[in-house]
Amino acid sequence: MAAIAPFHVMALLARAKELEAAGRSIIHMEIGEPDFPTAAPIVRAGQRALSEGRTRYTAAAGLPELRQAIGGHYRDRYGVEVPTRRILITPGASGALQLATALLVGPGDRVLLADPGYPCNRHFVRLAEGEAVGIPVGPATAYQLTAELVERYWDERTAAVLLASPANPTGTVIPPQALAAIISTVEARGGRVIMDEIYHGLVYDTSLQTALAYSDQVIALNSFSKYYGMTGWRLGWLVAPDDCVGAAEKLAQNLFLAASTPAQYAALAAFLPETRAVFEQRRREFQARRDFLLPALRKLGFDILSIPDGAFYLYADCSRFTDDSYQFALQLLEQSGVAITPGIDFGNHSPERHVRFAYTTAIPQLADGVERLKRALAA
Amino acid sequence: MAAIAPFHVMALLARAKELEAAGRSIIHMEIGEPDFPTAAPIVRAGQRALSEGRTRYTAAAGLPELRQAIGGHYRDRYGVEVPTRRILITPGASGALQLATALLVGPGDRVLLADPGYPCNRHFVRLAEGEAVGIPVGPATAYQLTAELVERYWDERTAAVLLASPANPTGTVIPPQALAAIISTVEARGGRVIMDEIYHGLVYDTSLQTALAYSDQVIALNSFSKYYGMTGWRLGWLVAPDDCVGAAEKLAQNLFLAASTPAQYAALAAFLPETRAVFEQRRREFQARRDFLLPALRKLGFDILSIPDGAFYLYADCSRFTDDSYQFALQLLEQSGVAITPGIDFGNHSPERHVRFAYTTAIPQLADGVERLKRALAA
Repeated sequence: MAAIAPFHVMALLARAKELEAAGRSIIHMEIGEPDFPTAAPIVRAGQRALSEGRTRYTAAAGLPELRQAIGGHYRDRYGVEVPTRRILITPGASGALQLATALLVGPGDRVLLADPGYPCNRHFVRLAEGEAVGIPVGPATAYQLTAELVERYWDERTAAVLLASPANPTGTVIPPQALAAIISTVEARGGRVIMDEIYHGLVYDTSLQTALAYSDQVIALNSFSKYYGMTGWRLGWLVAPDDCVGAAEKLAQNLFLAASTPAQYAALAAFLPETRAVFEQRRREFQARRDFLLPALRKLGFDILSIPDGAFYLYADCSRFTDDSYQFALQLLEQSGVAITPGIDFGNHSPERHVRFAYTTAIPQLADGVERLKRALAA
Repeated sequence: MAAIAPFHVMALLARAKELEAAGRSIIHMEIGEPDFPTAAPIVRAGQRALSEGRTRYTAAAGLPELRQAIGGHYRDRYGVEVPTRRILITPGASGALQLATALLVGPGDRVLLADPGYPCNRHFVRLAEGEAVGIPVGPATAYQLTAELVERYWDERTAAVLLASPANPTGTVIPPQALAAIISTVEARGGRVIMDEIYHGLVYDTSLQTALAYSDQVIALNSFSKYYGMTGWRLGWLVAPDDCVGAAEKLAQNLFLAASTPAQYAALAAFLPETRAVFEQRRREFQARRDFLLPALRKLGFDILSIPDGAFYLYADCSRFTDDSYQFALQLLEQSGVAITPGIDFGNHSPERHVRFAYTTAIPQLADGVERLKRALAA
């Protein structure tokens, strides 16, 4: 338990709520949750499911219709055939991450991952009795692992490499050729790639291919939370290689029995054309926010050296202003009412020099936040 | 992974569905899920939550109103004060079990539990790097642990004892004095009790006190699935001792972020008087089923030596008919269309001599099942 760090942003969020309760105006740029409500067709499908009494357990692998719809999504969006039997529905991407690490990681096994990165990844590896090896990454590789880095850090204890594209906290992506190169490097060494694609769909000046296009040995995971806007429903999925499917189902039965049934029925509506139109409109709105916030922060003196092509985060070097980003974030909250996430939540590689801005709030609020930052930094 | 057993009943259930798809009539006495739909006030509350856009993440510990409502439930039902801060909402009792074992069990720690028992318990202990020690129990102790058994099996590596009352697969309960004695025995040795109360409420000729009445060091867990009839919603809760609350929240953040938000809003309606009236009517129906099935099975020659006071299971010695309960169950399914669960799913203590009957189907179906059994056993 001592190895599991809390999210520091939670303490900050709690303080932000206290200040709000006391009447202060707070600009929230700390929250990794889109501000849009779940799209209406999904909500209606959820209500219909409840009317029809869809409240009993599904099979551990999930609702067959939803697994098929996800297979259709891989076909339509990526041109990749993924057999339904390899697709498992999970309680959020959290459930998928836990399955993936439990499947691939044994006692003492090492898993390579980028530092900075999503903090829970390290903890899931630890819970599987493995060791997460954070590889320091920076602007030179767009904060992503490369085949060369994987080669350099690989040793006989390494079992897997965990990639995320687009990534949290940096929003950067792995270009297709680089992704293919990492996968073949890992597989040539007898290892496996765990591919986090939970921000797929939320990309701006580029397009992404799923890692499943390059290998059927990859474990890919995705979520209905981000692009699909279903955070609180807690629904995600896992694509397992054929040799892992049986073990994945067995583990899912034991760990969580099944994902939420009403959520699974609701998610069927996520693949309708009218719902995709809502998602695409929101994607354009996120892009407009990024295109506003990125130059505005740079102008204030934050260094953002890699173009964040996706997700809804900007990871900024704040060393022009502070050598303690946690205190910096606390002070901005207290004095200016701007909530951001300190680097410490994302790893050990220079966290004190970095903060994360989330553009999960509308442009007028972002503009207000930038003005507040400007005054605070001039003071 | 190899240490994680599949549920054998799943293979049986799959075969039952194949037979049904081919037109055969199957009597389902294998399923641990009530046949009642979720009560109407809960469904309505879920639909209202969706209309109101309650689809974003809650805090990791859960919706404050729901935690308070559960505190009120302990006050009203058991006369026990449980501070809201100690109550965490989880994705099903599965989530609560995983939290409880991760909190209390370290590498090499031993956890004592009854054999037969709920199979996932052993696996959660294993996932926490501990060792589950199944203690063979039988009719002499109503298939439950006792203070004396705990004393006998306790050693310096033992960290915790896991109890379930009413229990799966036996339906038996731990009487109040025996429960208090176990708890004080465990705590005198510096250990902790994990108390599974997921079938509380579903008791028939007796009434139960929560383990929280005897000690505030117990970790108690409960579920909205059984008495509250919300299986597919995946919602449960955990009551942690004060010294574990911080770690439990941290772990919940990492493992699953939060439980389903629409489910949490829906569950608020579970504590309304009109909803309780529905639950109580269903409890009486379960009691009527038990009172029908128990003597009928005994008359056929199944030995059921401990009165099952709760849950919706009968655990029967079938050694008069077979020395291989798994083959026996398969044969009954194929030849008579009666689906039951073989003992192998519940542990290593004479599983080949036992089967579990679930009375999660209405009396006319149960009566049909008994008739089919009668013909099969006479053949």
